[in-house]
Amino acid sequence: MKMDLENMFDRLWPINRSLMGPAYRESLDILSEKMPMKKHVFKTGAKVFDWTVPKEWSVNEAYFIDPSGNKHADVSINNLYLLSYSAPFSGKISLQELKQHLHTLPDIPDAIPYVTSYYSERWGFCISNNEYLSLEEGEYTVVIDTALYPGDLVIGEAVLPGTSGEEVIFSTYLCHPSLANNELSGPLGLVFLYNLVKSLPERRFTYRFIISAETIGTIAYLSKYGQHLKEKVVAGFQMTCIADKGNYTYKRSRQVESLADRAAMQALKESGLDHSIVVFDPGDGSDERQYCSPGFNLPVGSLMRTQYGKYKEYHTSLDNKEFIDFSALEDSINTYFEIVKIIESNITWKNVVGYCEPQLGKRGLYPTLGAPAMENHVKAMMWLINYADGTNDLIDIAKISGFSTTKLSAIAENLEKHDLFKRV
Amino acid sequence: MKMDLENMFDRLWPINRSLMGPAYRESLDILSEKMPMKKHVFKTGAKVFDWTVPKEWSVNEAYFIDPSGNKHADVSINNLYLLSYSAPFSGKISLQELKQHLHTLPDIPDAIPYVTSYYSERWGFCISNNEYLSLEEGEYTVVIDTALYPGDLVIGEAVLPGTSGEEVIFSTYLCHPSLANNELSGPLGLVFLYNLVKSLPERRFTYRFIISAETIGTIAYLSKYGQHLKEKVVAGFQMTCIADKGNYTYKRSRQVESLADRAAMQALKESGLDHSIVVFDPGDGSDERQYCSPGFNLPVGSLMRTQYGKYKEYHTSLDNKEFIDFSALEDSINTYFEIVKIIESNITWKNVVGYCEPQLGKRGLYPTLGAPAMENHVKAMMWLINYADGTNDLIDIAKISGFSTTKLSAIAENLEKHDLFKRV
Amino acid sequence: MKMDLENMFDRLWPINRSLMGPAYRESLDILSEKMPMKKHVFKTGAKVFDWTVPKEWSVNEAYFIDPSGNKHADVSINNLYLLSYSAPFSGKISLQELKQHLHTLPDIPDAIPYVTSYYSERWGFCISNNEYLSLEEGEYTVVIDTALYPGDLVIGEAVLPGTSGEEVIFSTYLCHPSLANNELSGPLGLVFLYNLVKSLPERRFTYRFIISAETIGTIAYLSKYGQHLKEKVVAGFQMTCIADKGNYTYKRSRQVESLADRAAMQALKESGLDHSIVVFDPGDGSDERQYCSPGFNLPVGSLMRTQYGKYKEYHTSLDNKEFIDFSALEDSINTYFEIVKIIESNITWKNVVGYCEPQLGKRGLYPTLGAPAMENHVKAMMWLINYADGTNDLIDIAKISGFSTTKLSAIAENLEKHDLFKRV
Repeated sequence: MKMDLENMFDRLWPINRSLMGPAYRESLDILSEKMPMKKHVFKTGAKVFDWTVPKEWSVNEAYFIDPSGNKHADVSINNLYLLSYSAPFSGKISLQELKQHLHTLPDIPDAIPYVTSYYSERWGFCISNNEYLSLEEGEYTVVIDTALYPGDLVIGEAVLPGTSGEEVIFSTYLCHPSLANNELSGPLGLVFLYNLVKSLPERRFTYRFIISAETIGTIAYLSKYGQHLKEKVVAGFQMTCIADKGNYTYKRSRQVESLADRAAMQALKESGLDHSIVVFDPGDGSDERQYCSPGFNLPVGSLMRTQYGKYKEYHTSLDNKEFIDFSALEDSINTYFEIVKIIESNITWKNVVGYCEPQLGKRGLYPTLGAPAMENHVKAMMWLINYADGTNDLIDIAKISGFSTTKLSAIAENLEKHDLFKRV
Repeated sequence: MKMDLENMFDRLWPINRSLMGPAYRESLDILSEKMPMKKHVFKTGAKVFDWTVPKEWSVNEAYFIDPSGNKHADVSINNLYLLSYSAPFSGKISLQELKQHLHTLPDIPDAIPYVTSYYSERWGFCISNNEYLSLEEGEYTVVIDTALYPGDLVIGEAVLPGTSGEEVIFSTYLCHPSLANNELSGPLGLVFLYNLVKSLPERRFTYRFIISAETIGTIAYLSKYGQHLKEKVVAGFQMTCIADKGNYTYKRSRQVESLADRAAMQALKESGLDHSIVVFDPGDGSDERQYCSPGFNLPVGSLMRTQYGKYKEYHTSLDNKEFIDFSALEDSINTYFEIVKIIESNITWKNVVGYCEPQLGKRGLYPTLGAPAMENHVKAMMWLINYADGTNDLIDIAKISGFSTTKLSAIAENLEKHDLFKRV
Repeated sequence: MKMDLENMFDRLWPINRSLMGPAYRESLDILSEKMPMKKHVFKTGAKVFDWTVPKEWSVNEAYFIDPSGNKHADVSINNLYLLSYSAPFSGKISLQELKQHLHTLPDIPDAIPYVTSYYSERWGFCISNNEYLSLEEGEYTVVIDTALYPGDLVIGEAVLPGTSGEEVIFSTYLCHPSLANNELSGPLGLVFLYNLVKSLPERRFTYRFIISAETIGTIAYLSKYGQHLKEKVVAGFQMTCIADKGNYTYKRSRQVESLADRAAMQALKESGLDHSIVVFDPGDGSDERQYCSPGFNLPVGSLMRTQYGKYKEYHTSLDNKEFIDFSALEDSINTYFEIVKIIESNITWKNVVGYCEPQLGKRGLYPTLGAPAMENHVKAMMWLINYADGTNDLIDIAKISGFSTTKLSAIAENLEKHDLFKRV
């Protein structure tokens, strides 16, 4: 998986994506090779809840030339040099005038910041603070050949149907150019996870995978399908920041103890890895803010490695291929798949013999020799038999007993074969 | 405020108050200068719930003379020398007889204890244990010129009306003579707090300030107005022990998590000061025991500094002007006022755009440049927008977000101006 | 009590009991001397829920002789030498063949393990691993003169009636031969506790004492009386492992906070002893697994000293008279009796004067002299008066106030005499 991830990463990296435009569509097409998608389209000017879909944006070239003739901030070298959604501009201006259009990060003087201006037309460049300080006085030539024009906001979606009517969603965004952990890890993780989920021989839940532009794309999607999700979704996850080398962080949904939260926390517990659980925090984050807005209040959490805003490379040119690790990304995808498996196995079982324990020995499920210590496998079975009363689901029993969902699930299915367990 | 507090303290200190009588009325009149009051009167013999209003008490003079002719326990020197509500007596008696009427504190040998006998007629003096031990054998002349006679139990009350029908009460008692922290800090704090609350340009709640005699006064008041309070009061506080230099202690109401409790704890949290929260304890305390008796179960807590009974000077002659600090008293009054402001600001807001976030940028509420880190002010706004779903009040949102009620309240009112928030 | 306990222990110890048979009946008869019992009988082959009552078992003699003529595993020396419910066998076999019928404990090489085979007919011996390793090659003579035949499963029961229709049960089992802590401590404790409960001048609850064979006996009993217990039982306890010198362990019922749990935890708290509280764990334990099976879900916990499986002597020949302590057993019985007293005293009181405090002074219940500190006894009374609102029972008030149920109960009864308290 690692090599496939890296190959696709290398193809997506140089494309100067933003919310809408040809670069976004090109990126979506590449991802479609791994995950065939249905495209949902919203036109510029469309009203989606409190928002209005903006224009498309495309970039031809952009740079500025200093009085000595040196070229700076050439977008063909790094997409971040150009303010995302920058308006076109060309002309000769003084350094003082130019500086009003330059964005830097004094705290990380060698990094180019990632800055956007989607809803207010302005032009600008982002450069390192070191470069900024070295600019000489004199006349500068600015060339920004971009275009803003009516077009399409596109959301890609793939669905893997299951046997029950309930749904699990995975969501990510594709509007950040040349940022590795926060963002490419998200769409890459999502399409590879899609293939793992697709490989399951059967699925109880329908799985919906959504790739959109952050905020506006998700809001547009929810304006059309939010009501459906509200009725069907039992768990959901926003995928982002999953390729750095840090420990896992799980950000709970606003519902706090939804199936998404319980399954993710159980997966992390069973992994044995150090990890953090953080509360739902609308003062930071990504599209879980829309999914968890009070009108929807969907059970959408987010499993990340180091959380956005908690690593200095975040939203700068330092969040690049060197910063991430494809093994870490692969592990993250597998951990998401573990969550899927826990959700699939999270059946509410009912012990058919509710009065006293069933006689397991006569069915070959219990040793016929009573010895001083009970085996671990038998203990797990006794927990299941006692707590499978039709109200506790498998995660409940895993939590109270300390046994893994995998072990409990296998035993429960065996008890079902012996007609001792049924599904509620 | 400090100098005013001290001036009024000095005038109230020498008056030999008890539950009822001219000294109590004189004290109430002095406090009326800062807070005009309506007087509620209950006659001696009146039945109030399980209790009967006792007689008035007045003191002319009281002392005893030892065999060498030295005067002891002269009430004109310290009010505590005379047992409060002491019956009159005069005569010549032996030291042995006298000792049966002397109350001391062996553990604090230089302190005069504060002792009362409201409901059982007896005479007596309170002296330091050192003085007690130095008394010589021989004949003693006792003079206690007091009077017990039918009269009036008086409760002073002031009301500051608000726009809603709901009420907040502050209660204190005025029956302790020459005790500084436990008691004068209470009525002084209450009348000065009254003036701060009065200064508010508008009030959502009606504020009721009650000065009574401890226990019997409050029981009498509740016998007449308890039902009204039960219907109207959303928060209340018993004011006592607020002038020592110790850290704050908040004693919860019996309801545990009433608005009184939540507002007081939030004020203490926002103060950043070390403080303690203690449970409602009917085995100790003041009139909150009546307000929180199970029939009423009013949301009445008590913000103190060092709790009664937790400092050795409590109910002795050492609880005097030297023991207290007028700056501490002023701070306590201001902290109570902070609680009032939190209660006033504790609106349950509802975000009008419940589905997804509103577009703040187009209203000038959000930076049009998307930069790596969100500002603190914007984060607070995002918490408000998400959690203002019509079920959480402002204190809830302050607690979950960690932002102060002051900050959140200002932002909420601004969102209301932009028609994004409404009051529930 | 100690000497009586030891005498009865010494008579019960040598009898080779198992689930059913003459030895079990003989043991039950000895216990009947202290507690007259009604006998419930279930025949071999009877269906009880998912189980079938097995045959009776009796032992005449059992041993094996090595090639040098030495006798081994003579059941007349230690009952554990013979596999419990061993089928009869006699013959000459090789060491290799014999070894397939020998059970040892390599981890505790000098201990004979306790092994049973109730539901699968086989023959076998249990010996120490040291003895096992010393067995020489050659021909062995095996003699197992036992019998398996249709008969009776017997459960002994005694009932002490109370004034209310509700019941408290104590349950133990009598099927383990020559094991001291896990098992004889249980039936001994139960019959002596019976006599303490019988000595109470009055009882609110009916007390039911049950002695059965572990698992099958209790399942049989529940098949007949389970529905009755489900309607009546408010607290129950499985008695086992109560004679070792370890600290107390309380295993909660499946209901977690039933009256059984609350009373047992309160008794341990009031004892001031170090102790542990553990959750209900169906993966280990005794007949509480049947009482707490989901169909019944009775409030049955278990107060033990060191829990089964947590001491190395468990289910081996080392769990013998030297391992236990009759003073510890006596203390355990007394602690169970404390639990009974707490349950009996756990009345829900209602303070008749709900509005404000009653005037205690006029009833002689409160000192007429108001002094700096309230007495402990008066504090406890104030807690009772405030919290006895008809919803809190005595254990609730003990927990919130920190006062003992004994102290609170005495005060409550005194307040009842003064017509201030009534029972709900």
